[in-house]
Amino acid sequence: MNNQVAAIPMRFIGPVRVRSEIIDDEQINVPLATYETTLWPSTARGAKVSCLAGGIAVSMVSDCMTRSISLEAPSAKQAVEIARSIEVNHYDKLAGIVSQGSRFAKLQAIQHHIIGKTIYLRLSFTTGDASGHNMVTFAAEHIQNYLLSVFADLRYVSISGNYCVDKKVSAVNAILGRGKYMIAEINISENICQQVLNTTPARLVDLHIKKNLIGSIAAGSLQSANAHFANILLAMYLATGQDGANIVEGSQGITHAQCDDQGLYFSVTIPNLIVGTVGHGKMIGFVKDNLEQLGCLASTEPGLNARRLAEIIAATVLCGELSLLAALTNPDELMRAHQLFERRNR
Amino acid sequence: MNNQVAAIPMRFIGPVRVRSEIIDDEQINVPLATYETTLWPSTARGAKVSCLAGGIAVSMVSDCMTRSISLEAPSAKQAVEIARSIEVNHYDKLAGIVSQGSRFAKLQAIQHHIIGKTIYLRLSFTTGDASGHNMVTFAAEHIQNYLLSVFADLRYVSISGNYCVDKKVSAVNAILGRGKYMIAEINISENICQQVLNTTPARLVDLHIKKNLIGSIAAGSLQSANAHFANILLAMYLATGQDGANIVEGSQGITHAQCDDQGLYFSVTIPNLIVGTVGHGKMIGFVKDNLEQLGCLASTEPGLNARRLAEIIAATVLCGELSLLAALTNPDELMRAHQLFERRNR
Amino acid sequence: MNNQVAAIPMRFIGPVRVRSEIIDDEQINVPLATYETTLWPSTARGAKVSCLAGGIAVSMVSDCMTRSISLEAPSAKQAVEIARSIEVNHYDKLAGIVSQGSRFAKLQAIQHHIIGKTIYLRLSFTTGDASGHNMVTFAAEHIQNYLLSVFADLRYVSISGNYCVDKKVSAVNAILGRGKYMIAEINISENICQQVLNTTPARLVDLHIKKNLIGSIAAGSLQSANAHFANILLAMYLATGQDGANIVEGSQGITHAQCDDQGLYFSVTIPNLIVGTVGHGKMIGFVKDNLEQLGCLASTEPGLNARRLAEIIAATVLCGELSLLAALTNPDELMRAHQLFERRNR
Amino acid sequence: MNNQVAAIPMRFIGPVRVRSEIIDDEQINVPLATYETTLWPSTARGAKVSCLAGGIAVSMVSDCMTRSISLEAPSAKQAVEIARSIEVNHYDKLAGIVSQGSRFAKLQAIQHHIIGKTIYLRLSFTTGDASGHNMVTFAAEHIQNYLLSVFADLRYVSISGNYCVDKKVSAVNAILGRGKYMIAEINISENICQQVLNTTPARLVDLHIKKNLIGSIAAGSLQSANAHFANILLAMYLATGQDGANIVEGSQGITHAQCDDQGLYFSVTIPNLIVGTVGHGKMIGFVKDNLEQLGCLASTEPGLNARRLAEIIAATVLCGELSLLAALTNPDELMRAHQLFERRNR
Repeated sequence: MNNQVAAIPMRFIGPVRVRSEIIDDEQINVPLATYETTLWPSTARGAKVSCLAGGIAVSMVSDCMTRSISLEAPSAKQAVEIARSIEVNHYDKLAGIVSQGSRFAKLQAIQHHIIGKTIYLRLSFTTGDASGHNMVTFAAEHIQNYLLSVFADLRYVSISGNYCVDKKVSAVNAILGRGKYMIAEINISENICQQVLNTTPARLVDLHIKKNLIGSIAAGSLQSANAHFANILLAMYLATGQDGANIVEGSQGITHAQCDDQGLYFSVTIPNLIVGTVGHGKMIGFVKDNLEQLGCLASTEPGLNARRLAEIIAATVLCGELSLLAALTNPDELMRAHQLFERRNR
Repeated sequence: MNNQVAAIPMRFIGPVRVRSEIIDDEQINVPLATYETTLWPSTARGAKVSCLAGGIAVSMVSDCMTRSISLEAPSAKQAVEIARSIEVNHYDKLAGIVSQGSRFAKLQAIQHHIIGKTIYLRLSFTTGDASGHNMVTFAAEHIQNYLLSVFADLRYVSISGNYCVDKKVSAVNAILGRGKYMIAEINISENICQQVLNTTPARLVDLHIKKNLIGSIAAGSLQSANAHFANILLAMYLATGQDGANIVEGSQGITHAQCDDQGLYFSVTIPNLIVGTVGHGKMIGFVKDNLEQLGCLASTEPGLNARRLAEIIAATVLCGELSLLAALTNPDELMRAHQLFERRNR
Repeated sequence: MNNQVAAIPMRFIGPVRVRSEIIDDEQINVPLATYETTLWPSTARGAKVSCLAGGIAVSMVSDCMTRSISLEAPSAKQAVEIARSIEVNHYDKLAGIVSQGSRFAKLQAIQHHIIGKTIYLRLSFTTGDASGHNMVTFAAEHIQNYLLSVFADLRYVSISGNYCVDKKVSAVNAILGRGKYMIAEINISENICQQVLNTTPARLVDLHIKKNLIGSIAAGSLQSANAHFANILLAMYLATGQDGANIVEGSQGITHAQCDDQGLYFSVTIPNLIVGTVGHGKMIGFVKDNLEQLGCLASTEPGLNARRLAEIIAATVLCGELSLLAALTNPDELMRAHQLFERRNR
Repeated sequence: MNNQVAAIPMRFIGPVRVRSEIIDDEQINVPLATYETTLWPSTARGAKVSCLAGGIAVSMVSDCMTRSISLEAPSAKQAVEIARSIEVNHYDKLAGIVSQGSRFAKLQAIQHHIIGKTIYLRLSFTTGDASGHNMVTFAAEHIQNYLLSVFADLRYVSISGNYCVDKKVSAVNAILGRGKYMIAEINISENICQQVLNTTPARLVDLHIKKNLIGSIAAGSLQSANAHFANILLAMYLATGQDGANIVEGSQGITHAQCDDQGLYFSVTIPNLIVGTVGHGKMIGFVKDNLEQLGCLASTEPGLNARRLAEIIAATVLCGELSLLAALTNPDELMRAHQLFERRNR
């Protein structure tokens, strides 16, 4: 009964045109694995815009992986003293412990949060080309063991205190970072808007404000104002061997659209894009093929392959977001597209 | 280049022992498709507990699928009048329109939210055995066209106003419902806790409070207090042809653990479990096989197959949650388990 | 040492011009009690706009006061059964109990939320002219005692289960209502914008989007997108004998600004405005005087006085919000205004 | 009509017994100004416990005041470059500008958040004994003017970009700090629990978990899990000349209760307590008297008076929280107390 596979439909769409600090100006075909097959033509339309409009510029704001350990002191007073001491007196030692235990993990920051007498230490690391879940758990365990040996008053609570935060909705990730903080942006002329997206900048901006911004606020969203980041994230995560449950954090991002003299400025901000090109799942045949075809196995400088992958994903999220929002500006386009495409593909 | 598949590793684990209004007392093997292969042994340990402890009882609190349309009135004053009129004067007509357009969709409720002069109408439906994304978009479009024809002052904004909320973090879903609202629970003796989970009820409860409750609150979570619902949800979604991006809402749930005379009471509350046994993805060979093996294609009463699937998933989420929390009570168990399992499976 | 008073500076500003279902078209002077005395000239500028621009239209979407009791069943299964039974079999009985116990409280709705085996019953009432905190606690206690006597399996947890939600940040209040859900709106010509507010509609809208919408989302706000509702709410609450701590819920509201052919459409949506004209604090001399001068003691129809007060407050919140946002469009206006006013008033 | 006052009832309750780094072991009477007069006896009961149980220990975790300016770059790419350059190349210059412009304000940290091409710079300062609202606006304006002169590509958006966050619900404040981050804690014997609070540690902890933790999570709270911080905060803010609207942030805090060998450990964590002993409102006669009586005008070291005030407030919040939670463990105590006290005080 074992050693089966879930064979999820996958297609390459595009090309998506991308520019960044590390991508000169490339047109890249991207694989989307999904049961929601209408994602293919929809994202492809956005990709078409990217080629016509001079490409999507992608920037990385920050990059890390985190794990929060939770420890209990005898009192809040001692918790505060110990937390300060860790940062002032033990940071360098802890950084050394991390580097000794791993070729790739480097301690980047420690932030503490104290509730009553419980300390949540949010440990932040760079992890090379790995998404780094296990690497940081391993490093956190070493740090934890050291702290428990140095501070006799501390008691172990949990190696993961839900202040990390992994695969769960939170605010802390967007504010302090987890994964790669990516922004993808494009300037689209009124003309391309009309001809490819069948809408105008003004109409798209109006819909964006009332749906993504006000609609999300009214729904009680948190750090999130977009149409469907999660769809594209999952499709690319499955195609490239990522831990798909990290789309939960990934889904918390912000689309922006505003009119200007040239037409439409459009961006997607994804503060928590967790991806890797090595580790779990990356050895599977089709995953390797996909990563190779995306150019994400070529660099020998640690971190650059994963960064390239994040940039391609961010650009693809923009394509999917742009196309869906444009479709929604026309009352019956969404449903018609679904019906047409699904009939054609029966 | 097309018509490829992403072949994701899948194993059946279990059996998970489940009881509910519609499941007598069965031991069910469940498929988990995931790159995170340590999920298999971990969830299997929880399944073992389910068998020894008399089974997991699953309850369904509510069931619906929603879509929110967004419309603009000339003023807030008119928006309020129109929203009231829709509910008082047009509800029956709208329910009829929905029933005429679909064999399975039934209008269940309309809730309005007005921001300035923009109306967000959250339409709630039952959708039989389908998860219902497209069914409710179709129904919402009919409702929208009717309303635009009746209320000349209304202007179309969006067929989906982000007050639905689909694949995005929100509070409204947990409060008003989207998908199936499931609770799975189990009573575990101190003895089983010790022998299978290698911990005590008191230690597990203490860790749960500081990690899942306080840790999540400190992290700025929203409607969410659990360890890793998203992991199990995704693995079962991929194995059964679901729209995996709905784990975003699914991840927003609450674990509860408390000590009592008998040992440990443990439950998982999942307010937004979106699943179907018909529709997109369900025709794929292995999906059909899996649904069949889970007994989720057997009923001829609309809705019962999807409900059965939701109950099995909820019980499996409990298994995964219980096992991970127990592991975390022991300082180095998590890392050791990862290392052992991954070494064995290289 | 006792029987002292905190003597907080108070001024009447205005007039604020208001129109609604119950206010024909009046110009009303409003009292603001505050240590932040720059609120006076700032809100007065907004009031001036209200008079020039034809008045602020105010609408009430809904009206209630809530209390959530928390009860525990032996299992989630029984919790679900009991919750259903309460709504189906006992609603009328409970409504009767409420009406018998109070001249003004009427049961309006019961909503349940179940986490594990704990039931949170959110009881919603109308409470006439009282804000109703004590009235609904009293009613909830009667309901609770009845339920504990009918359902032998239920165990008391808390008469207030934090699902009410009183004086605390939450999403449930905005979605299900607590207090009066108010919208105030105004249309302002480009000309008035320029001459009184020293800005243009386009500049104000751009600032609003980047500050109130995107800035709030980035900050991890919840159901909240405004500049300073809390300031005006507190100043009016203190002047009219309200429970000032309810500004916590009141602060969670949404400002909207959009350009149109006539100039600027501007609105404030306040879903949780909790006010009363009878009860605690209303017997104090200056409070009575203020309520009288606002015309909020004149009606003999229960509820109309409190509603009138809510409408005046909502209109005043709009004045304060409009004026501050306009000031912020000019780089140094805010600081200059503070310095000038405070120097003048030393 | 002007120069009136809102005369709000005020009483001193206590003494509250407090210990901290700067308070040796004092019994302090505290003034509460409120229309909700039942706060007096309730908080007084908590104060009684504080004296019997050896006092409330108070710790300060951090201390700052913030203002976020919002600026727009031509692209996200440039926004990222500029944000980095500010932190790397201009921090010292900016710190100097701040120190030159004020005797008390010191730049403590700059954190940036970029959405699309809009930069939100969250500027963090220490502000001596002032709460610092105006001081940091003034400093932020100087910083802003400097940045606009150095970076020609930047465009002014807002001197306050709602990422500060002032008087509004948010996650960023609890995570990055705004105001004083205070923890107050106490250990209470089973005996005192029984005799003064009429409950047991176990019953209080159970209620706390289901009300403050789970109830708040179910209600969609954010960074908040307490019973009524806002009540005590407002009463003390009004009595000591604070900007009362800051209870919005102040309300977002976490109560903790757990049983141990000695009885009950109880704490309140208030991450955003904004108070000052100089500035707006502090010159008013009764305010000055109150601050003096609290010992909050005695120190000549900048910051110590405001810190002392924050510690007293935190301890008083604990008293109010403890007493209400204890009352709620007894089904009808809350209502009976209200009725008795209000009858007595008519």
